[in-house]
Amino acid sequence: MTKVRVPLILVNFKTYSEATGKKAIGLAKLAEEVTHECDICIAVAPQFTDIYRMAQEVSIPIFAQHMDYVEPGSFTGYVLPESIKEAGAVGTLINHSERRLKLADIDATVARAREVDLLSVVCANNAAVSAAVSVLKPDIIAVEPPELIGTGIPVSKAKPEVVTGTVELVNRINPDVMILCGAGIMRGEDVAAALRLGTEGVLVASGVVKAKDPYKVLLEFAEAITKA
Amino acid sequence: MTKVRVPLILVNFKTYSEATGKKAIGLAKLAEEVTHECDICIAVAPQFTDIYRMAQEVSIPIFAQHMDYVEPGSFTGYVLPESIKEAGAVGTLINHSERRLKLADIDATVARAREVDLLSVVCANNAAVSAAVSVLKPDIIAVEPPELIGTGIPVSKAKPEVVTGTVELVNRINPDVMILCGAGIMRGEDVAAALRLGTEGVLVASGVVKAKDPYKVLLEFAEAITKA
Amino acid sequence: MTKVRVPLILVNFKTYSEATGKKAIGLAKLAEEVTHECDICIAVAPQFTDIYRMAQEVSIPIFAQHMDYVEPGSFTGYVLPESIKEAGAVGTLINHSERRLKLADIDATVARAREVDLLSVVCANNAAVSAAVSVLKPDIIAVEPPELIGTGIPVSKAKPEVVTGTVELVNRINPDVMILCGAGIMRGEDVAAALRLGTEGVLVASGVVKAKDPYKVLLEFAEAITKA
Amino acid sequence: MTKVRVPLILVNFKTYSEATGKKAIGLAKLAEEVTHECDICIAVAPQFTDIYRMAQEVSIPIFAQHMDYVEPGSFTGYVLPESIKEAGAVGTLINHSERRLKLADIDATVARAREVDLLSVVCANNAAVSAAVSVLKPDIIAVEPPELIGTGIPVSKAKPEVVTGTVELVNRINPDVMILCGAGIMRGEDVAAALRLGTEGVLVASGVVKAKDPYKVLLEFAEAITKA
Repeated sequence: MTKVRVPLILVNFKTYSEATGKKAIGLAKLAEEVTHECDICIAVAPQFTDIYRMAQEVSIPIFAQHMDYVEPGSFTGYVLPESIKEAGAVGTLINHSERRLKLADIDATVARAREVDLLSVVCANNAAVSAAVSVLKPDIIAVEPPELIGTGIPVSKAKPEVVTGTVELVNRINPDVMILCGAGIMRGEDVAAALRLGTEGVLVASGVVKAKDPYKVLLEFAEAITKA
Repeated sequence: MTKVRVPLILVNFKTYSEATGKKAIGLAKLAEEVTHECDICIAVAPQFTDIYRMAQEVSIPIFAQHMDYVEPGSFTGYVLPESIKEAGAVGTLINHSERRLKLADIDATVARAREVDLLSVVCANNAAVSAAVSVLKPDIIAVEPPELIGTGIPVSKAKPEVVTGTVELVNRINPDVMILCGAGIMRGEDVAAALRLGTEGVLVASGVVKAKDPYKVLLEFAEAITKA
Repeated sequence: MTKVRVPLILVNFKTYSEATGKKAIGLAKLAEEVTHECDICIAVAPQFTDIYRMAQEVSIPIFAQHMDYVEPGSFTGYVLPESIKEAGAVGTLINHSERRLKLADIDATVARAREVDLLSVVCANNAAVSAAVSVLKPDIIAVEPPELIGTGIPVSKAKPEVVTGTVELVNRINPDVMILCGAGIMRGEDVAAALRLGTEGVLVASGVVKAKDPYKVLLEFAEAITKA
Repeated sequence: MTKVRVPLILVNFKTYSEATGKKAIGLAKLAEEVTHECDICIAVAPQFTDIYRMAQEVSIPIFAQHMDYVEPGSFTGYVLPESIKEAGAVGTLINHSERRLKLADIDATVARAREVDLLSVVCANNAAVSAAVSVLKPDIIAVEPPELIGTGIPVSKAKPEVVTGTVELVNRINPDVMILCGAGIMRGEDVAAALRLGTEGVLVASGVVKAKDPYKVLLEFAEAITKA
């Protein structure tokens, strides 16, 4: 059940207080419930400190929010790929708009992820950058116009051309890459629209974490996929 | 037993493979043993992913290797102070030579540490920088000439004037700050020398983690303190 | 006339289009005029590309807006201290709130400035950080609460305690450092207030560069000093 | 004569003391001489502070070594595209291995270069990264394995597959991009080999700047192209 399947709902916990420590575990358990109910793959990306405990208590795929491409050694304060792997993560976000990386470092980080058998989810801000990233052969690209993140205005409505443009350009360069879209995803219809535009899922954060009833929102997302 | 006392041996696990995941827990248990045997305070600074598990299984003070001064919110991939606190850390390294921070960020990070009741251990590369840091009122300053880190040449022998200079300058500006020194600490005599030069302990990494017998080395360190 | 004297009005040209290229030279000439008229020291900090030409055409002190502490060598895209010196600068801003540096790098940059005989003006965001900086022995500290920069609300009115706190703390640690304050300086009375609070001048940007009549504003500043 | 033509020899002055200030002007004049003698396009990339003066005194294409994608405004210490344009540059290096940028920033910087009519030369460390960059539509890509830079071991000999791989991948994605290669270029035969491997020129630094007789080396480079 910790295997990533398509379509995918990937919930980024960021550093929200509603998704830190014990509350992170609680939220992951709600995601697990919906997974079982709807047979839709929901994955979560908690903070580094919560990965181990979550992997012990919950059986859904866990991603780190970032990792460094460093080798084991003298890198105080960095996030060793092997450390998130051993803690129980199946993959990692890379280059989130809140944690942008240098191009050469994205290349090295995707390679390190492959080396330690972690799924790489590289975030990108537009279609051209997504296409550039696809050359580096990550497993997943998540395209998110940063100006829409956290606004509640879904990318599928405000900038559908960013999503379709990404799908078209990436498929031309590297059709093996799975594409997610994100930013402003709040309702089931936003998830359905994302799939209609050619993606295989969504990257969502505040829409779930900050919801009054995250369980209900996740259920709505999953049902939108089932019906799609 | 998770309270920090003086003199202090603080072991930085860096991203060494010998100190990642299960092996990190094993190493922390050796430190705990020596703590009980010699009644000397040994603290450890494991990777983010290992803090929670270590806090569950070991009763010695745990420090993070770094934290960001961000507030709860949209900071994907950053290390929220509250997250390391809830995972079980009692403090954090700040500005390690392998993870240098901007001056204004050190100020903000020390303030955030105080806010969430975490001990701040700010690293510095020389006496002047240590003195500058002391103005920001961290709990602990660890002075380490970066060119000696990992060399096996103890700072107390190669550059004793950096240690004494730090002690003198910091005491003049802010006598409330506890001072550690580090870099090249390999043997009990290096620890004894550190105390003689006016510090209240050592920050050590490879000397313990990369040792053939870390238990023996820690015991030697602790005994050097007892005899001092 | 290119020597820096006290009290000092230092005008940061930032990357304003009103202060780029030919317009930068024009603005510097206005500053030179006021200098001659009022016998008050006005210095300017243009962009890197404008330093050489300005030094050829204008006889007032020129500062760079930033420099790197690198040695001559393989540092493509960095700002070599020797390059700004040879171009005609007498000093450099360091750690401006829009270009914050790591603490160890501020230390190294101040040392490099001294080595090549450039005046170091280290910016700081509050009294504690100013005091920390003073330990590193720069020639000048410019304290500017970043939240007031560009607002038109003068620091001397909104946060006089930041200025007096800086003066007090810095004088205690290193009385040899000259102190400027900045942020929101728009009128002569703001400059007079800055001096009354214990500084030896101001760091100003938009208040001059974005003014309808920069000559008139500079004259007002200079006269406020003469009358003070 | 300041127009960039193919094949191109682009000389990066880095922060070498032999290529700073007056000496930079002297070196550029030698390049100009060889340009006239052999009718081969030689361009130079001096430090920011030297661009204006060089453009006044020399008639060969001048590139900046880096620029920031900032707009005119409050960006103290940054390199405004308009500033290097007005100083006389025809283009800029972007993402040199000694000044790596974030992926989203490379995208934005290439776009800003286009906006102000500057040629963009994006550096890349390997074939995949070059291909990724080509999606962003820069004018020129310079592929340089960083481990060979400054070694005197030419990329065309040590890693010809990096050059041919870059040519192949980039041509497939964006055949409009001009490709240079660099690292270890010391002799005429290295330049000839670079062209044979499918590039349209070289990016060179120490091979010219640190040579006993830069004029002779440039002449050898230019003649190798003429004969090729």
